[in-house]
Amino acid sequence: MGCIARPAKGSSMYDLVIANGTVATAADVYRADVGIKDGVIVALGRGLTGAAETIDAAGRYVLPGGIDSHVHIAQPSGEGIVMADDFESGTRSALFGGNTTVLPFCIQEKGEALRTALTDYHAKAAGNCYTDVSFHLVISDPSEAVLGQELPAAVADGYTSFKIFMTYEALRLNDAEILATMDTARRTGALVMVHCENEDAIRFLVDKFTGEGHLEPRTHATTRPVVVEREATHRAISLAEVVDVPVVIVHVSNGAAMEEIARARARGRPIVGETCPQYLMLTEDDLSGMDWEGAKFVCSPPPRDKAEQTNIWRGIETGIFDLFSSDHCPFRYDDDRGKLNPKGRNDFRHIPNGIPGVETRLSILFSEGVMKGRIDLPRFVAMTATNHAKTYGLYPRKGTIAVGSDADIAIWDPDAERVIRHAELHDAADYSPYEGIAVRGRPETMILRGKVMVRDGALVGEKGYGAYLPRGLSDRAKPPTE
Amino acid sequence: MGCIARPAKGSSMYDLVIANGTVATAADVYRADVGIKDGVIVALGRGLTGAAETIDAAGRYVLPGGIDSHVHIAQPSGEGIVMADDFESGTRSALFGGNTTVLPFCIQEKGEALRTALTDYHAKAAGNCYTDVSFHLVISDPSEAVLGQELPAAVADGYTSFKIFMTYEALRLNDAEILATMDTARRTGALVMVHCENEDAIRFLVDKFTGEGHLEPRTHATTRPVVVEREATHRAISLAEVVDVPVVIVHVSNGAAMEEIARARARGRPIVGETCPQYLMLTEDDLSGMDWEGAKFVCSPPPRDKAEQTNIWRGIETGIFDLFSSDHCPFRYDDDRGKLNPKGRNDFRHIPNGIPGVETRLSILFSEGVMKGRIDLPRFVAMTATNHAKTYGLYPRKGTIAVGSDADIAIWDPDAERVIRHAELHDAADYSPYEGIAVRGRPETMILRGKVMVRDGALVGEKGYGAYLPRGLSDRAKPPTE
Amino acid sequence: MGCIARPAKGSSMYDLVIANGTVATAADVYRADVGIKDGVIVALGRGLTGAAETIDAAGRYVLPGGIDSHVHIAQPSGEGIVMADDFESGTRSALFGGNTTVLPFCIQEKGEALRTALTDYHAKAAGNCYTDVSFHLVISDPSEAVLGQELPAAVADGYTSFKIFMTYEALRLNDAEILATMDTARRTGALVMVHCENEDAIRFLVDKFTGEGHLEPRTHATTRPVVVEREATHRAISLAEVVDVPVVIVHVSNGAAMEEIARARARGRPIVGETCPQYLMLTEDDLSGMDWEGAKFVCSPPPRDKAEQTNIWRGIETGIFDLFSSDHCPFRYDDDRGKLNPKGRNDFRHIPNGIPGVETRLSILFSEGVMKGRIDLPRFVAMTATNHAKTYGLYPRKGTIAVGSDADIAIWDPDAERVIRHAELHDAADYSPYEGIAVRGRPETMILRGKVMVRDGALVGEKGYGAYLPRGLSDRAKPPTE
Amino acid sequence: MGCIARPAKGSSMYDLVIANGTVATAADVYRADVGIKDGVIVALGRGLTGAAETIDAAGRYVLPGGIDSHVHIAQPSGEGIVMADDFESGTRSALFGGNTTVLPFCIQEKGEALRTALTDYHAKAAGNCYTDVSFHLVISDPSEAVLGQELPAAVADGYTSFKIFMTYEALRLNDAEILATMDTARRTGALVMVHCENEDAIRFLVDKFTGEGHLEPRTHATTRPVVVEREATHRAISLAEVVDVPVVIVHVSNGAAMEEIARARARGRPIVGETCPQYLMLTEDDLSGMDWEGAKFVCSPPPRDKAEQTNIWRGIETGIFDLFSSDHCPFRYDDDRGKLNPKGRNDFRHIPNGIPGVETRLSILFSEGVMKGRIDLPRFVAMTATNHAKTYGLYPRKGTIAVGSDADIAIWDPDAERVIRHAELHDAADYSPYEGIAVRGRPETMILRGKVMVRDGALVGEKGYGAYLPRGLSDRAKPPTE
Repeated sequence: MGCIARPAKGSSMYDLVIANGTVATAADVYRADVGIKDGVIVALGRGLTGAAETIDAAGRYVLPGGIDSHVHIAQPSGEGIVMADDFESGTRSALFGGNTTVLPFCIQEKGEALRTALTDYHAKAAGNCYTDVSFHLVISDPSEAVLGQELPAAVADGYTSFKIFMTYEALRLNDAEILATMDTARRTGALVMVHCENEDAIRFLVDKFTGEGHLEPRTHATTRPVVVEREATHRAISLAEVVDVPVVIVHVSNGAAMEEIARARARGRPIVGETCPQYLMLTEDDLSGMDWEGAKFVCSPPPRDKAEQTNIWRGIETGIFDLFSSDHCPFRYDDDRGKLNPKGRNDFRHIPNGIPGVETRLSILFSEGVMKGRIDLPRFVAMTATNHAKTYGLYPRKGTIAVGSDADIAIWDPDAERVIRHAELHDAADYSPYEGIAVRGRPETMILRGKVMVRDGALVGEKGYGAYLPRGLSDRAKPPTE
Repeated sequence: MGCIARPAKGSSMYDLVIANGTVATAADVYRADVGIKDGVIVALGRGLTGAAETIDAAGRYVLPGGIDSHVHIAQPSGEGIVMADDFESGTRSALFGGNTTVLPFCIQEKGEALRTALTDYHAKAAGNCYTDVSFHLVISDPSEAVLGQELPAAVADGYTSFKIFMTYEALRLNDAEILATMDTARRTGALVMVHCENEDAIRFLVDKFTGEGHLEPRTHATTRPVVVEREATHRAISLAEVVDVPVVIVHVSNGAAMEEIARARARGRPIVGETCPQYLMLTEDDLSGMDWEGAKFVCSPPPRDKAEQTNIWRGIETGIFDLFSSDHCPFRYDDDRGKLNPKGRNDFRHIPNGIPGVETRLSILFSEGVMKGRIDLPRFVAMTATNHAKTYGLYPRKGTIAVGSDADIAIWDPDAERVIRHAELHDAADYSPYEGIAVRGRPETMILRGKVMVRDGALVGEKGYGAYLPRGLSDRAKPPTE
Repeated sequence: MGCIARPAKGSSMYDLVIANGTVATAADVYRADVGIKDGVIVALGRGLTGAAETIDAAGRYVLPGGIDSHVHIAQPSGEGIVMADDFESGTRSALFGGNTTVLPFCIQEKGEALRTALTDYHAKAAGNCYTDVSFHLVISDPSEAVLGQELPAAVADGYTSFKIFMTYEALRLNDAEILATMDTARRTGALVMVHCENEDAIRFLVDKFTGEGHLEPRTHATTRPVVVEREATHRAISLAEVVDVPVVIVHVSNGAAMEEIARARARGRPIVGETCPQYLMLTEDDLSGMDWEGAKFVCSPPPRDKAEQTNIWRGIETGIFDLFSSDHCPFRYDDDRGKLNPKGRNDFRHIPNGIPGVETRLSILFSEGVMKGRIDLPRFVAMTATNHAKTYGLYPRKGTIAVGSDADIAIWDPDAERVIRHAELHDAADYSPYEGIAVRGRPETMILRGKVMVRDGALVGEKGYGAYLPRGLSDRAKPPTE
Repeated sequence: MGCIARPAKGSSMYDLVIANGTVATAADVYRADVGIKDGVIVALGRGLTGAAETIDAAGRYVLPGGIDSHVHIAQPSGEGIVMADDFESGTRSALFGGNTTVLPFCIQEKGEALRTALTDYHAKAAGNCYTDVSFHLVISDPSEAVLGQELPAAVADGYTSFKIFMTYEALRLNDAEILATMDTARRTGALVMVHCENEDAIRFLVDKFTGEGHLEPRTHATTRPVVVEREATHRAISLAEVVDVPVVIVHVSNGAAMEEIARARARGRPIVGETCPQYLMLTEDDLSGMDWEGAKFVCSPPPRDKAEQTNIWRGIETGIFDLFSSDHCPFRYDDDRGKLNPKGRNDFRHIPNGIPGVETRLSILFSEGVMKGRIDLPRFVAMTATNHAKTYGLYPRKGTIAVGSDADIAIWDPDAERVIRHAELHDAADYSPYEGIAVRGRPETMILRGKVMVRDGALVGEKGYGAYLPRGLSDRAKPPTE
């Protein structure tokens, strides 16, 4: 009698079957059971039986676990500030937000060997993760040794993407360094991500506005206007054109920068665009809160205004953006060190840049995008999982529900209604910038490589099951057509 | 012991298993067997056994059968000209080209009731098809009765899309008629397709150039320049904006018309763009052949030039086009009636517009697009099958490989190399406009609702297995986001 | 001893000298006296003496008299409505507004010979004008006789421009007629002006909104949205491209239509753009006034919103617009026939389209443009006088201050401040849409062909001094460069 | 008896009358005599008599003397290379080319006080000029002292414009320096000119191509592709937007950079665009000549291709460019030092950048622009004289023919036909890049401040009559409208 072939060897045919749910991929939505064995999806069918465990997903969406390819965890942040999340809290929060993989940044400090940075970062992650993880490098010191030997070696070892900064005094590269670094990407097939803001222009505006006595959080936004991001975006795209490499423009906040991406694509340039929840849900007015509350919304680029939110939605709808990430970068607002830190309390220049969001990313896009009819479910899956996997060399192992892929699955209740409350989140920050926003849809059960990690909202998996993922080359790192 | 559940009732678990192939959908590419029962895909797994028949697809792509949503079959063409293909030859050719569904046009003649047109057209198709078929209506006479009663009734019956023309004296609607017809689409949820060329401008140019003695085929292209298509495209989009309906701009031939689509989308308008092989592979120079050979390439809009081919590729790569169709519209070149027809022999105005292509569409895009690295396989599947199904209300029954979908499958040999020769094609025309073009990739086995129709290049299915498909409303016919 | 040469023959060297003023042309601003003889400017210098009369213009700008190339006077308006201004009041109002030449429209009614229309219109003007006048024809019936004989004859006689309409049931031409009419322009060198709004789309929206019970004036704006103007603008430009003629897009109201002009120019098309004060100063909210006051602002295209006002300013600043005209089209609001007319009182469809403005055009642009630093004085002169003369074949006789040109001069007091009050205007309407707007700058003395018509704000010239001007071909009616 | 007033005091009424010519300004073309007294235009009229000297200009255009606001004279050029022209030969060549004013650059070397640079440069010019001259500063070392004291002092002294470079190792400023320098412009009202090419990107490409063995002149163009100019153009515009100052983008070579200017203007930014003859007449193919002849065409940005020539013409026609300059920068090709220099002979990196052109600029634009119908005569005057005067604070003294302006006049024979031959030019280089190009139109008589310098093609003025011109603030340096 016919069966799925993998012989059962005295055990169950499937370790786990997710039954009766509605499976969605980046292309399709259909009713099917998902059969899992040894952590891998081995069968899609109806009425799959012979499972050691069956989860009934009737009335639920069965989605690929979210991949958040832009998070900051346990990252040194200057001025002695400690990032709120370590790998334990960060990946726990990610998991509860519907994710099964996150890609934080491993930052090279000036003068540091990449290997040292990686070793340190691995040590932080090892044994502490609730999701799978992989690391992007941040290249802050593109010396001849780094570009000539260390980085190619790291790419060969599976660190196939790296980020460079055009802002932040400690991280920024000048154009010559950007070109040299991109050239290493070209030679190795690695993919470059760029944070696009013009540091010199920001410095100019910071000096101008602080000189006029503006020290409050909102000045953070005032000194990083759209023009500063548009300029750097166009420059990054142009430098990538000079070298002839693809490039990821991360966390795009506005229509002008978005238009630079669209124009470049129309010229045939392979540009990947990323945006984030803060550019759909927040505005710079949020930085004006009383009692220094605006500090809760300080991130770079800053949120803009309602018109730019509409522009960003347009970019999501029309496909300018491939990636929707959180840029999770958590700092505590109010703890024994005072509001954020003693210095930042009086001067926005000392407020660490970044807001938490790894746990709210998927709910926000599901609720505002899918449930409000702006995008369909496949596009949601593509922007939150599949495209991340394809862009960063994890596909087809990650990012989809298909035979042979890791059984990384989020079972969503599309009808669950709730209001975002930080008290109910799982990160180690002490607030959410999205506090009070009502959302529909909730990842109620999370499965990582076949193992149930969260069941009906309760943590059941253990810390350390999350593993490190070396990666292949990006699907996007192919040359443009002639 | 665990099995796929559907109890076997004394028969095989699967009627057919396609084993060892590489399945591709609009999102994914992965190795899996496909289990088929009662014409439907019931399982995806590895090592599926228990099949009445197994086809080994090792080294092959297992793709959703192509859907060609823009073909003309057995259509009256004026001046007593008979279209080369009836449903038998047309669907046979489609099938050999890798398609399992085609959507030809059922044309309402002026004064004709839609029901009459449909009845006649059904009669032509019934019992003659090698693929499944469904019909778009062509509305040429939008009378009050048609728009008020007949068309809503037809939509309710599953004729959920219709096409209107801005050119051809016998078919064109004026703006008031277009608006009224679009308004019926808005009320019924039907989807409007528009052939965008400005008839008055064409008439003006035809009079001008024929007045100067230009009667050769190339004048067909000269009198339908880009501006004529761009104008009508912008107008169709604008009228759809006035009514607030989505619209399909069919057979876009050039970058300027494409830009109108892109601009409209950036304003938030739901526009679907379609292009065709002729705009990638032919140019207006082809209309200049000796011995009236240019007549073989007369279609509307006409092919343009090399620069426009690049523009159209750009539109395919960047997602401006959702649909890649053939606009198959076959006329014989050389038969007992002379080259095309006695009148057309001396005056391009009498050459019937249209070229064959239903059998070459998929090979051309596979070879030029996928094999040359311009697009990946999921995008190929999306543009040739999935998006057609979603756009025209056939999804998820058609257009993908997923549990529960019809087992419409093309097994492709990606490495097969051949040269397009009309002698080897299966339509009833007597030439191919793509004669002599070398292509890589070939659909070698075709399965329609679980039944093998073509095996290793040989016809094994019988005429009449192809069925008529009533359709649901388009996934695209949703209002734009606010 | 050296003198300006023209021998004095016992009379004065100059009939009139305007001394000590600041002369401005479309290029220059400089201090000079202007010497006038026999109605013509014969000398520019300093300290000109020997004048029969000298006007001291110290502290004043000496500008070319305004040319308003878009006014409606004594025009039949359907439904028995009488236009408020005849040639006497219309040109008197124009004169007081700073103009020395106006170009009203002579409308061909359906079936009427152009010669008849012209004869009638000349009869209305003859002996009644305070400014020079010339006529644009309006072609409403482009019959073979009209296009073949009558229009070429009229062009040869100096009626070198004509207007066509894409809206208004009684006037609109279809695309075939537009093409044929433009082709006559091409053959004769005449210049075509187009009123761009899609009549069918307006009809559709009017039916929709009146069907929902909306009869108030604001619905006039609702039923003529930007898309309706943008569509027609693109179509007019495209048809002109098919024929290969220049075209004037009149009274552009918004950024989208403006963008069509800019795009066409970037392709090398010779398009002239015109805008009007209503698109800088009014919005559609003005159509919502109480007590049917909104009727005072009913014109086509309708005023838009603040964002579009900014767009129009941008078009003025960046040179997309060559012409700034009034589109003066005066109807009385409140007279013995009731507010406008008995029918219009209850249904916006019966409110005649058009607002007065020939007397306020220059003051508005001077005040809002020049005095607020948006444009400089030469650009003001170009947009209000010189470009009109060049566009419509009156240059160099009209439109500048140069030796040999007609002595048509407005002496402006740039510092005069006043508030626009209809009570102080000179037209025969009974309101101004600009009532209450404060302006700086005022034409205090007006000279027509050397004759003082208004002196320090008082009428001194006699009716009938204004003459009819046959015109040469437009400077703009040259083919675009290859 | 009436006369022009200036009492004659026993002398002639006019020192010089240019009689019977056709005067053209940036707005007008009309027949008038020009009366000159004490170096200034004092009268425009017909039949002016009473002149000490009369030049008959019948059949000639009487134009404002050309102003070339972008020339390099006697400038140190690194590697011990001597620029071919000193002030004597450079201004002589300019004069014969139809110019009466040139604005060369006074370059601050690193560490040098501006005053020192100016003193040295004045010394070179003093007593040696055939045209009037004024200097732009080049700021290469924007130290605190320079920006805080020296530059404001220089602006106050009439050096009201300065240029900065984004390329050339010795001159380039980084973004912080550009911002600081622009900020000084904002505070002082000076106008910034920017040479826009990304030095780092050029370095990257130079290293790449020379590493591959490409040392020939054409590699100069290959290593400065359009993207390098487009990037820097967008960046310069963006930095100017951050500071909120106008900016002149000099020597624009291509449509992409031009589009950046157009986009910025559409956003309301006050950007002045300049282009040059080399971008209309030369292509990068010219750099491929045999026997190192390509070196004759090495300039930055390099000439592009035919399509870009068309783009630049479009920019001239549509008003994107305000200025047409020569960027005259002459080096000898073949002298006792070998072809250019011993190093440059073998390696394009040592070929000094720049080509001669001050004498051919006007003839090229007159011939290719005016005589071929692309632009009219007023636009020619605007782009070659008036706009330069207005942009650089010389208006109304220079740049027009108006009462009160300097009598700087070029009498053009529009019908003269000739072929450009370096043997007939008057510079001190040894070739012209335009050798062999046929042109129509020739400045036959040149008058500087009322003095005839060239009469019928022969030099009659003496060296040293040309004077230094301190300048006022630019008309363009006004803030954009709100």
